[in-house]
Amino acid sequence: MGDFSVIGKSVIRKDALDKVLGKTKFSADIKLPAMLYAKVLRSKVPHALLKSIDVAAAKALPGVVAVLTAADVPGSNAHGIVIKDEPVLVYDKIRKIGDALAVVAAETEELAIQALGLINVEIEELPPVFDAEEAMRPDAPKVHGDSNILSLRKIRKGDVAAAFAGADIIIEQTYRTQMQEHAYIEPEAGVAYLDGDVVVIKASTQNTHFDCREVARNLAMPSNKVRVIQAPTGGGFGGKLDVSVQIFLALLAVRTKRPVQLVYTREESLVASPKRHPCTISYKTAADKNGKLLAIDVVAIADTGAYSSYGPAPVTRLAVHATGPYEVPHVRVDAYTIYTNNPTAGAMRGFGVPQIAFAYEQQMDMVAEKAGISPLAVRLINTLKENSVTATGQILETGGGIDSTLTAAYAKVQEHINGQARTDTVKRRGYGIGCMFYGIGNTGLPNPAGAYVDFLDDGTVNLMVGAADIGQGSNTIIAQIVAEELGISFDDIHVISADTGVTPDGGATSASRQTYISGNAALRAAREAKKIVLEVAAESFGVPAAQIVLKDGWVTVQGQQEQFRKTIKEILAACRSKGKMTIGHGWFNPTTTGLDNATGAGAPYEAYAFGSQAVEVEVDTETGQVEVLNIYAAHDVGKAVNPLQVEAQIEGGSIMGLGYGIYEDVKKDRGRIKTPSFATYLIPTSLDVPAVHSIIVEEPADTGPFGAKGLGETSLVPTAAAIANAVYDAVGIRVTELPVSPERVLRLLKASGNAIRQGNDRPV
Amino acid sequence: MGDFSVIGKSVIRKDALDKVLGKTKFSADIKLPAMLYAKVLRSKVPHALLKSIDVAAAKALPGVVAVLTAADVPGSNAHGIVIKDEPVLVYDKIRKIGDALAVVAAETEELAIQALGLINVEIEELPPVFDAEEAMRPDAPKVHGDSNILSLRKIRKGDVAAAFAGADIIIEQTYRTQMQEHAYIEPEAGVAYLDGDVVVIKASTQNTHFDCREVARNLAMPSNKVRVIQAPTGGGFGGKLDVSVQIFLALLAVRTKRPVQLVYTREESLVASPKRHPCTISYKTAADKNGKLLAIDVVAIADTGAYSSYGPAPVTRLAVHATGPYEVPHVRVDAYTIYTNNPTAGAMRGFGVPQIAFAYEQQMDMVAEKAGISPLAVRLINTLKENSVTATGQILETGGGIDSTLTAAYAKVQEHINGQARTDTVKRRGYGIGCMFYGIGNTGLPNPAGAYVDFLDDGTVNLMVGAADIGQGSNTIIAQIVAEELGISFDDIHVISADTGVTPDGGATSASRQTYISGNAALRAAREAKKIVLEVAAESFGVPAAQIVLKDGWVTVQGQQEQFRKTIKEILAACRSKGKMTIGHGWFNPTTTGLDNATGAGAPYEAYAFGSQAVEVEVDTETGQVEVLNIYAAHDVGKAVNPLQVEAQIEGGSIMGLGYGIYEDVKKDRGRIKTPSFATYLIPTSLDVPAVHSIIVEEPADTGPFGAKGLGETSLVPTAAAIANAVYDAVGIRVTELPVSPERVLRLLKASGNAIRQGNDRPV
Repeated sequence: MGDFSVIGKSVIRKDALDKVLGKTKFSADIKLPAMLYAKVLRSKVPHALLKSIDVAAAKALPGVVAVLTAADVPGSNAHGIVIKDEPVLVYDKIRKIGDALAVVAAETEELAIQALGLINVEIEELPPVFDAEEAMRPDAPKVHGDSNILSLRKIRKGDVAAAFAGADIIIEQTYRTQMQEHAYIEPEAGVAYLDGDVVVIKASTQNTHFDCREVARNLAMPSNKVRVIQAPTGGGFGGKLDVSVQIFLALLAVRTKRPVQLVYTREESLVASPKRHPCTISYKTAADKNGKLLAIDVVAIADTGAYSSYGPAPVTRLAVHATGPYEVPHVRVDAYTIYTNNPTAGAMRGFGVPQIAFAYEQQMDMVAEKAGISPLAVRLINTLKENSVTATGQILETGGGIDSTLTAAYAKVQEHINGQARTDTVKRRGYGIGCMFYGIGNTGLPNPAGAYVDFLDDGTVNLMVGAADIGQGSNTIIAQIVAEELGISFDDIHVISADTGVTPDGGATSASRQTYISGNAALRAAREAKKIVLEVAAESFGVPAAQIVLKDGWVTVQGQQEQFRKTIKEILAACRSKGKMTIGHGWFNPTTTGLDNATGAGAPYEAYAFGSQAVEVEVDTETGQVEVLNIYAAHDVGKAVNPLQVEAQIEGGSIMGLGYGIYEDVKKDRGRIKTPSFATYLIPTSLDVPAVHSIIVEEPADTGPFGAKGLGETSLVPTAAAIANAVYDAVGIRVTELPVSPERVLRLLKASGNAIRQGNDRPV
Repeated sequence: MGDFSVIGKSVIRKDALDKVLGKTKFSADIKLPAMLYAKVLRSKVPHALLKSIDVAAAKALPGVVAVLTAADVPGSNAHGIVIKDEPVLVYDKIRKIGDALAVVAAETEELAIQALGLINVEIEELPPVFDAEEAMRPDAPKVHGDSNILSLRKIRKGDVAAAFAGADIIIEQTYRTQMQEHAYIEPEAGVAYLDGDVVVIKASTQNTHFDCREVARNLAMPSNKVRVIQAPTGGGFGGKLDVSVQIFLALLAVRTKRPVQLVYTREESLVASPKRHPCTISYKTAADKNGKLLAIDVVAIADTGAYSSYGPAPVTRLAVHATGPYEVPHVRVDAYTIYTNNPTAGAMRGFGVPQIAFAYEQQMDMVAEKAGISPLAVRLINTLKENSVTATGQILETGGGIDSTLTAAYAKVQEHINGQARTDTVKRRGYGIGCMFYGIGNTGLPNPAGAYVDFLDDGTVNLMVGAADIGQGSNTIIAQIVAEELGISFDDIHVISADTGVTPDGGATSASRQTYISGNAALRAAREAKKIVLEVAAESFGVPAAQIVLKDGWVTVQGQQEQFRKTIKEILAACRSKGKMTIGHGWFNPTTTGLDNATGAGAPYEAYAFGSQAVEVEVDTETGQVEVLNIYAAHDVGKAVNPLQVEAQIEGGSIMGLGYGIYEDVKKDRGRIKTPSFATYLIPTSLDVPAVHSIIVEEPADTGPFGAKGLGETSLVPTAAAIANAVYDAVGIRVTELPVSPERVLRLLKASGNAIRQGNDRPV
């Protein structure tokens, strides 16, 4: 298994050349003959009854071809990933600023904008609610129905009360995390047109098959008459899991019978797309005097905004991961998802876990301090190991991932620190650790993916997967998996992906799942095609099929001389001469169980990835500015199919985690985003980026393709927590609210009387 | 099996509406941004050495973007279905008028034509050969290599010499058949463009996967970087099995990096495309005194023209079908395929069998006359039946098809004749029978096809097949097969076909094979997807999967009450809730054996279709004009998946057979086609079409999808023979040369001294 030709090699990703040459055509670059331009009229108030919309003047404007309102939606006029609670176009009630009221198609973008100004909307404002805890009160204004509590996820394990009663150490703290924006380089965009009786939508998306079903239901069309093709996508990070432009485009294309394009402005993207849930987390930890964890008791309240989107799912994941990568015998978690009239929160890289990691990792350091042991020691005695039992009662069949990453990251940071004297100047350095684990795939829900493999006569392959490559590189990774299995070159694989007209469903590009799930599906499809090749080769060599090996373009017999071999192309020719086709299909769904409603018990994931980051910060005690100097990021990926891409993911995730940790904050005022552009919403620029030291750890998953797990989200998860721990190490203040901004640090420093601890006594 | 919901129903074909509304976009209708127009420089001489080509002046013409010659073909510069003996662009020797010498791409079609005139070609003419029998002589000019005999197919069964020695009746006659043009409504056309590193070719074609391999080899590119998509195709009839525009377009698109279009003119299409082989057939039949066949001894010489194309295959098929649908104990056939400097002959509907049917069916009538029995009687005592042994030694496991069609056609024509007095006026009526059988699929060669089925959540299906629907209706038929199997509506199937980028290979749309072979592949794919549905339904109902029935959108349990049922959509939802995908793949290759080189022994087809036609003609004894009044065409299709389409195929085939019988003739003068337009090449117009009475006979093939066989070619095969027999019946002359033109009839009438037989003594 260890002797790979393609797996573990940093082949150049499929999309690299076109992207670096600027040749990639994103949705906004598409120009079709007679194409119309669409614009969306959006609400400027957060909560109101919609009384009427008058579009007559807009329709009368020359060059305006269509103005659609809710009355023009033939289907359900409802979408949403978990619950269909969001209208395509508002028909009764506005629930947030940015709600879509009407959509226009015109000959030019300018005319479309002009038309929006001619639409007359009559509303009756309603009292809004913007605070999640307020929204939970019975007398709060209701966003939907008669309760703002969208969901409550409970985790129950053991006897938490008894454990706390017998604890030597109890740490209790409330943490607050902010709303984060995905800030992908490409705003939401797409085009649509008719191809016979099929409406084709090309759009920037993370899940074409979901989009297809959403469009079909809202247009009251069969799914096979709606074809969603992923356009090259400039980032998603969870923000393009919801439909954005897709249904608008389909409605307009069907209505006008002309191609239509809709490209969100950056401001519109910020207003319309779901974001990372802001959370308030009350976290209580019990440990014995040695720092061994006994229990946790957690209440998390997540503001999911006006619509459910993916809402309850990240909050469930938050709950399931509330212990961190530690075995905790007694667990109580209540995680609430709450409707408000704020912008919608949904999926974002990390999916609830960065929030809870910010809490549990600071708790760990505080336990260590109380127990008088090092942050490393408190972790190592508590980490999940083989046969550990998670909070949901799942027994881990394989373990070791967290310890391997922890010791790897620790070794690197220690090597860096060694010999450095800690200087007690205005700028003070500190070191912090953040650990995480992450279940690969949807939480206790089915999430299969499919693939087709066509092994062509000349030994090249057409590989079809539903998985959307949004820049994370799934097309490359899955192609490597198939190339390895079939014994051919990576360059010989052509990937067709994320096209509902031709590829099988790949599920969402989320939950760090495509390498593991679509990778497994493609592997199965490849094996089905390969089976024929093996049979024919076996017949040709007169040996059992089990002895045939395909590798590097050659067919050989295990243990036989090299001269006793043929090219794969020769065997494919033999297949054809026997009339045997070498096509295969495959699908894979991880074996999981749903979570029990009352206790959260279950085995929600088939595989877990682990990671540990050690960061070095420098805190300016005069300005409160935190500079992250180094991130030592060790991540267990099972098997690094493409090490360069793994490193890139670790770098990208860590930097996004850095932004989450010290810069980014979607600030709001009565439901209005106060940071609606990158002038005011700060993401790390190239100048802000520290040295990210990627450390690849490989603890293979038996069930993964060639042992691979997933990685898309993991490296973002622990960064903010590690930074907060490092800040404490540097200046002795515990920042429990994100981001760790200069204002906040300075305020805490002042509150603590600048009582900065001295000496270099605490390694990380 | 008999209670079908979709099979046997004349659903409206998928492409009907767009075609009748004129909305279908054929290749010539495609306009792409910055598209160039291509033209081909073709040889005006039939045989010459190419000394040099000077393209400088053409290249210098403003607006000309590329002028390519053989030096610009990066790959093999050789194509051909059976043997790669035809250059894309001539590099050494011209072998026929119309050989491609250079190809131009320019900003306008006019400029491209102008550029052709500026290319200076230097040649050295060689002595040509235009007669196949002359070409067989050792001293004849050679077209390729050192012999003009491209192939000799031998069939040997029993002891022919002994059988002839003991025969009571011996009939010996030489037949000559003409070259026939496919005369599809749409000439060869296509466009090509680059999509990243893939060259995409959309073209009018019968076999995208073959085209793909031809383009890949000639461009020295991998097959998965060449994507051939079938454009809506306005007829093929075998003439679009060879590549035409495809390689030219790919070369130009890759060279210019711009979209390119190439549309043949009608004249160019006539000159460049392969046609039906002209044949000379010496046919000797031995029978006993009762008309029971004892032996045949046949020598056929087919002029295949300058290149092999499909050449040897139709001639092999001619040989295999030389007995007609009759059991003949002793058989000797020698069928030669001969190179000349004539236009290339290749595949055309019927594939060699119309030629031999013209011979064997007249032989049968002559045997009947000698034996003093009726044409019907001589056939019925000799027809193939269950356990009959064919000329290649194949034992027919199912039979009956020929007798069923014969008696059905006979009954209908008798019903028509009954009561009519035969009048001996200037215009004399006569009746003739033609019978045929036809092996479905390639002759003793592998010819698999594949399919993917994606059973979507809402109960609709994406069906992907490689089969090219060239107007014969395969998309409709295969969709009916899948709809029946899955228990859903025909309208719920969306077909994606003939696109090498996404569909599996479907093989050629030829040999009447797509219903049988791609139909079986799609059936297997559907069954694979259905298996999951059955399992989940079985679990849901608590019964074995074998008891579950999918029909009309419902899932029921065999023998259970109707209330005990769920919708298919409900069960699909249950599949999804269990994480089970309902995708399937399938491929099918008929079980055959290759033909022995020396004897032709083998089982070349898994299924045979049968047919019998009875025609009524009126011969004008003053002008020689033959008018066909009625065609009673009974064809065994196994199972008529779509009766209306079966009738349409029978009508279309019979009318093409009528053209072959009395009108069409590609006349040549020293390799030059003298009939290069429809002004001079006469095909039947709507005014020439007789009443075609389609009679559907169903003798199911165990191995066919729902019993279906194939039908595309069969109805053309016996028409000309039946007409010749009817002419004999009307006026007593035996026309042994096609077409049965007025000149020929008049000449024979004169030669016979107008000795027209009297009376109404011979029914058909």
